[in-house]
Amino acid sequence: MASTSVDVKELPASYVFVADVPGIKNSEVKVQIENDSILKISGERRRDDNPTFDVKYVRAERPAGKFMRKFNLPSNANLEGVSAACQDGQLTVVVPKIPPPAPYKPRTFDIPIGTLVYTNPK
Amino acid sequence: MASTSVDVKELPASYVFVADVPGIKNSEVKVQIENDSILKISGERRRDDNPTFDVKYVRAERPAGKFMRKFNLPSNANLEGVSAACQDGQLTVVVPKIPPPAPYKPRTFDIPIGTLVYTNPK
Repeated sequence: MASTSVDVKELPASYVFVADVPGIKNSEVKVQIENDSILKISGERRRDDNPTFDVKYVRAERPAGKFMRKFNLPSNANLEGVSAACQDGQLTVVVPKIPPPAPYKPRTFDIPIGTLVYTNPK
Repeated sequence: MASTSVDVKELPASYVFVADVPGIKNSEVKVQIENDSILKISGERRRDDNPTFDVKYVRAERPAGKFMRKFNLPSNANLEGVSAACQDGQLTVVVPKIPPPAPYKPRTFDIPIGTLVYTNPK
């Protein structure tokens, strides 16, 4: 199982994964979430030579075959909002962040003085 | 100067060079013939991050910067017919072959018997 180079970026509102997948189309790459915590990118690079021609490889440096990468996602990843697209041989996966809860702000307010109210009647 | 992976194939009528250039468009890659004998492929891979966002690189595996590769072309390469195109992060350069001269075929034919012809008059 071959690998592929991936950049991981953190933006204010999302995590962005960019993978090099030259020669691969949208339909040939698979993006999955495993166990609600792992981003899995997989696919296969094929040498699509025309079988009607006699092709002789003088040099074959480009990796071919299946590839796979896995990344642990942080706890604030919004798994339902993950989107992915392939363009110019680059796969980009955007994982939005769950917005942090509103910060705790202690309140100050008045209690009216008058009739007492008991939750459990006497 | 970084490198990039290239496959070189020989077909019956051409040589084909396929280079991995993920994220690169037609206008960002340069294909040149040097000294009537060398194929030069060069370009630059940029990290095109939106400068208005605060981007933090958690992982940066993808090569960035300028890259260049040179290949000696065989003597039967038709330099005037070279063509190149970028698609899905792959640059393909096709170098047609000059067709070999028609094979030597010894002839058999009759010489008419009659008046002699001298190239240098006696």
